[in-house]
Amino acid sequence: MLTVTALEGLPEVTPGDDLAELIANRLVDQQQAIEPGDVLVIAHKIVSKAEGRIRHLGTVDPDQAARELANTLGKDPRHVQVILDESREVLRAERGVLICVTRHGFVCANAGVDASNVPGADTVVLLPENPDRSARNLRAQLKHHTGTAPAVIVTDSFGRAWRHGQVDIAIGCAGLQPIEDWRGRTDATDRPLKATAIAIADELAAAADLARTKDGSLPLIVIRGADRHVTAEDGPGAAALIRPEAQDLFR
Amino acid sequence: MLTVTALEGLPEVTPGDDLAELIANRLVDQQQAIEPGDVLVIAHKIVSKAEGRIRHLGTVDPDQAARELANTLGKDPRHVQVILDESREVLRAERGVLICVTRHGFVCANAGVDASNVPGADTVVLLPENPDRSARNLRAQLKHHTGTAPAVIVTDSFGRAWRHGQVDIAIGCAGLQPIEDWRGRTDATDRPLKATAIAIADELAAAADLARTKDGSLPLIVIRGADRHVTAEDGPGAAALIRPEAQDLFR
Repeated sequence: MLTVTALEGLPEVTPGDDLAELIANRLVDQQQAIEPGDVLVIAHKIVSKAEGRIRHLGTVDPDQAARELANTLGKDPRHVQVILDESREVLRAERGVLICVTRHGFVCANAGVDASNVPGADTVVLLPENPDRSARNLRAQLKHHTGTAPAVIVTDSFGRAWRHGQVDIAIGCAGLQPIEDWRGRTDATDRPLKATAIAIADELAAAADLARTKDGSLPLIVIRGADRHVTAEDGPGAAALIRPEAQDLFR
Repeated sequence: MLTVTALEGLPEVTPGDDLAELIANRLVDQQQAIEPGDVLVIAHKIVSKAEGRIRHLGTVDPDQAARELANTLGKDPRHVQVILDESREVLRAERGVLICVTRHGFVCANAGVDASNVPGADTVVLLPENPDRSARNLRAQLKHHTGTAPAVIVTDSFGRAWRHGQVDIAIGCAGLQPIEDWRGRTDATDRPLKATAIAIADELAAAADLARTKDGSLPLIVIRGADRHVTAEDGPGAAALIRPEAQDLFR
């Protein structure tokens, strides 16, 4: 059995905060022990805020390309400039939507640059510079503060090709096998499984999202019962979930 | 808190079986009561088997198009013929992969035609003809057998553009709000949420997959604690999650 529990009451996070310490304090206050084998799922926004990955649009001077794109899409040119700064490539720019390849290699709307759940007008939050590194650091610091190193997943909500609605996915992780690869093993009828590799980290991110509400400020979720995917090592991180462009049929 | 629990011990399902009765018996045997607000997540394969959505490759006579495609992809021409029979359109046919739009409108590998976890060589399982109808029927019959109508989700494992690994998604559902639409509402800082619609049915499907193993024959999962997405009416079904071609930027 899997249980998915939200941790309540985290204070507003600001740049420079020791996020691991804030989380450790919440765990104590909520009398929620972290056990080895637990997975701590964290909405990236508080990670980004703690890491200072915030931009104030008042300080952004959009260039010609950003102005033209903003005009086409009906967006704020300064917001578009920040999106372009975070992008390696723009895949689509139509119908008010900007689908980008981020500098990390994620394909998502607006390169993950987001204005919701951010206090202060004209402030946007970026994705962490290296979400796998963020997850590794948090895991190490949680071990320091609590004595236990849970698996850590950093998430964002991404839209999908072909399907309506967003789902939370893993943009960073540590202490977790992000993909469970069944290729070479057999199914229940002893037939070889040819193409079955399960994106465990993304399924955990999706499960965690069900325990929160978008307006409820519940960025922290503990998942218990997924022990078999939890590892002693930090592992390859969520970078292992990115399909390289050369192997991708839909760009 | 959300709990995700696998129901063990379902017998091998064959065409014509009363799946709702089999499930009801399993619930009794495992002393697992179904409560209103529960979500029963069912891997489509047992639904397809009960509905007779099986083809024996010995009876399939591949045409010229199927033979040529099979030759290019290194697949069994009879298997390719079945895939084409289930497809409205083939989007990509390269690197041994056939990405199709199914007759329902799903975009997935091999039109969902699958040979794993099927007893008997040369037998393949198709997706249910109308997975939303399957979910509605199961829900009604579970109500008949148990007195309670849980939400029902029928799932399959789909690959994704841009990301490695498969995740389980909802191909059919009943008694559930498949998408939670936050557009027009506000976030925790009272800012309007512009583009947030969460694919709840897909997140539930993904969460359920974490409670099973691919070789363990655990097609039935009960999720408790997602009550706020469960509805008295059958609702729009998973068809509401399909992005129409005209709105899709990646075909």
